[in-house]
Amino acid sequence: MLSEDVFMALTAALGPDRVFADPETLALYNADETPRQVTPGAVLFPASHDHVVALMKVAYTHKLPVVPRGAGSGNVGGALPVANGLVVSFECMNRVLEFDLDNRLMVVEAGIVTEEVDKLARSAGLFYPPDPGSGAYCRIGGNLAMNAAGPRAVKYGVTRDFVLGLKAVTGEGKTIVTGCRTTKGVTGYDLTRLIVGSGGTLALITEATLKLLPAPESVATLRLCFDSSRAATEAVARVMHQPVVPCALEFMDHHAINAIRPTGTADDLPAGTQALLMVEADGAAIDLPRQIAALDRALSGPGLLESRAGFTREEIVRLWTARKSLSHAVKQIAPLKINEDVVVPVTRLPDFVDTLDNLAREYRIPVVSFGHAGNGNLHVNLMVHPDDMDEMARAHACHDQIMHQVLQLGGTLSGEHGIGTEKRAYVGLEIDADTLSLMRAIKKQFDPTGILNPGKLLPD
Amino acid sequence: MLSEDVFMALTAALGPDRVFADPETLALYNADETPRQVTPGAVLFPASHDHVVALMKVAYTHKLPVVPRGAGSGNVGGALPVANGLVVSFECMNRVLEFDLDNRLMVVEAGIVTEEVDKLARSAGLFYPPDPGSGAYCRIGGNLAMNAAGPRAVKYGVTRDFVLGLKAVTGEGKTIVTGCRTTKGVTGYDLTRLIVGSGGTLALITEATLKLLPAPESVATLRLCFDSSRAATEAVARVMHQPVVPCALEFMDHHAINAIRPTGTADDLPAGTQALLMVEADGAAIDLPRQIAALDRALSGPGLLESRAGFTREEIVRLWTARKSLSHAVKQIAPLKINEDVVVPVTRLPDFVDTLDNLAREYRIPVVSFGHAGNGNLHVNLMVHPDDMDEMARAHACHDQIMHQVLQLGGTLSGEHGIGTEKRAYVGLEIDADTLSLMRAIKKQFDPTGILNPGKLLPD
Repeated sequence: MLSEDVFMALTAALGPDRVFADPETLALYNADETPRQVTPGAVLFPASHDHVVALMKVAYTHKLPVVPRGAGSGNVGGALPVANGLVVSFECMNRVLEFDLDNRLMVVEAGIVTEEVDKLARSAGLFYPPDPGSGAYCRIGGNLAMNAAGPRAVKYGVTRDFVLGLKAVTGEGKTIVTGCRTTKGVTGYDLTRLIVGSGGTLALITEATLKLLPAPESVATLRLCFDSSRAATEAVARVMHQPVVPCALEFMDHHAINAIRPTGTADDLPAGTQALLMVEADGAAIDLPRQIAALDRALSGPGLLESRAGFTREEIVRLWTARKSLSHAVKQIAPLKINEDVVVPVTRLPDFVDTLDNLAREYRIPVVSFGHAGNGNLHVNLMVHPDDMDEMARAHACHDQIMHQVLQLGGTLSGEHGIGTEKRAYVGLEIDADTLSLMRAIKKQFDPTGILNPGKLLPD
Repeated sequence: MLSEDVFMALTAALGPDRVFADPETLALYNADETPRQVTPGAVLFPASHDHVVALMKVAYTHKLPVVPRGAGSGNVGGALPVANGLVVSFECMNRVLEFDLDNRLMVVEAGIVTEEVDKLARSAGLFYPPDPGSGAYCRIGGNLAMNAAGPRAVKYGVTRDFVLGLKAVTGEGKTIVTGCRTTKGVTGYDLTRLIVGSGGTLALITEATLKLLPAPESVATLRLCFDSSRAATEAVARVMHQPVVPCALEFMDHHAINAIRPTGTADDLPAGTQALLMVEADGAAIDLPRQIAALDRALSGPGLLESRAGFTREEIVRLWTARKSLSHAVKQIAPLKINEDVVVPVTRLPDFVDTLDNLAREYRIPVVSFGHAGNGNLHVNLMVHPDDMDEMARAHACHDQIMHQVLQLGGTLSGEHGIGTEKRAYVGLEIDADTLSLMRAIKKQFDPTGILNPGKLLPD
């Protein structure tokens, strides 16, 4: 419960219709997609940068924890409230402030839905490359906080690569303006990329200047079926040896394929398919057959059962059906998925998928793996029943093993979901003590009282 | 002069053949390409990361200023010594520590010559995209410090975009390890990109993990001659409206063309040529005619006098002759060039080149402009005689106007040369006071006693 004077101060700062502490609102905002709830003290709906400055000044004065929130679609607890703290929802700050087609940039407020940036860009022949799976409803502020990505990252890069500058508010309620409006610029330190990926622990981003690219004229798809995960991931490593960079290189293991069998979307896969690669190329329509042929050549090898290319809209949709049915199908295996988002060097993927199979057997947990193999980024899902204590204990031990194996293979804990509350315990295994201390010291300069998203990202 | 005990401590740390304080060595290292000299107290030649840790501990204990140095090819004073301070030359740390072809990365020491990274990568079908003009002799550590770029940045991005991780030593002599070995990773704060472009003021970079790309199969060139700088830069803005991204889009104004006339390399330009665009496309050989045709279409318009394409090695070399002769020719105009490296949004280039012409007339200073127009990044050179006090005063007033105009047009002070000592005075015009304070506070966490490259980048 917030004290009456804090509530009054916040209401004075934002106006009466932007501060909510009723039980219904608190319940609506008590979680993100992480399977946990924490009741906040109030939920705020700023409508402008100045509102965010005003609320941060109140929070700073009263030492109130502040958790920024986009759509709440994250799954590592990044937007999980802090008990009795403030949740700052950016959903009312969803305007496009400027669309400068000629310089290929867009200035947006933090609460805009990611897909709307892309849609507006495409209406003018441009596009916004980062394409997280939640793009239809997640908000750009959340993408910036987590440095979200998606399939296209293999060719175009991640959110961080498409931010030219930011406007943000520090833990003291000070406004900072970072970066520039041009594609080159080396004036001062690069605070833009420091804040991107900092999970709301350094500053509240209110506006972002996003870089856009010319939209590719056309896309084409390849679907390749393999007799093992190892064969499929060895093919992925071979793609690195030739010059055509696909704009998606997605993998599904045999657990994922088994999961979609009941839906019928696996019916057109050849018998014995144990792994799938979905590959997409983009560019000039006239150049796509060449790209697809080069990718097909590179991906062909031991264990390939079938390769199908699609160039028309209809063919492409048909080939992607199996992959697109996966998210829903996985949920049928068990009520809870412990969702991992690890990365290993692409050449270590074959060893890593073998390791995952061994761990799944050892701990008797269904482990469904799929994801952005072109970046070595797999979504590893441990499917469990939260009421089965024994299974949960085995799942946690298995999960722990997975994290250690990832680091041993030269990988990293998270590719695009972030660290949040859920992976903090492992950060010290990847980052050494001196570097971590420096990160904490930097955090303190942005947020001297430690009120910005406390308990997230950096371990205590 | 260093005191005897400091000299002894440094010698004990590095060994006797790595610490030099004799007048000859001090004179050799008393400048970079900035037209100024400052005599250091000693020049150190570490041969390993551990050497750098050891020397930084001595510097920290004795509060000695430390100036890191690559090849000394910078022109904003980034590697200019501090009087009686230490110069740390990385020329003995020039090894390739790892070339992981299969994961498209290379781990190098800070002192490797930039071009050698690219050469080794190309020997295996890959390449390192950043291509500063000094690539044949500059060292990667300097490129990282300044976030150097070059013509290819228009398609591929700048140095910062090709660094996966760093090993570095702070102002206290602590080792930090940043980033990861994969193309995705969001564990902890992005210290990698914070240190890149920080001009040696945050840490001494000892090792870098560089991202490589598949080498393009082939390149082709377009040379376009225009009757005015305005017409040429308007053409540049038109390129933004179509999907083919050139891998170079270079501009030369009429002062630059006049400068090369005595060399004969302008003889094949049509009469009335007042500006030149050099455009390059890369990719699959079979796809290049399409790219060149699209670029030619986009660049054609009012004021175009001639357009020539080159596809063979011989044709390409011939077309680039005029541009390649420029650097040397410019030096004939006057003994000193005040070299600017400003950026404006691409659509503001036409107004900017008009402004430059007006300022040149108003202040009676030859102003030669050329550079990476595709990024809006021009090298603006004020050609002066340092002994002519009146001319120097006019040049400085003109330079001051240029900087103000750049900011007014929505641009930034430096695209790739950095800030160093030379542009510090202007940084406060581009970055607001609160953001600058935050940058200073961050610097303090890396370098509590302020010994790392003092007097550079951030204004006092």
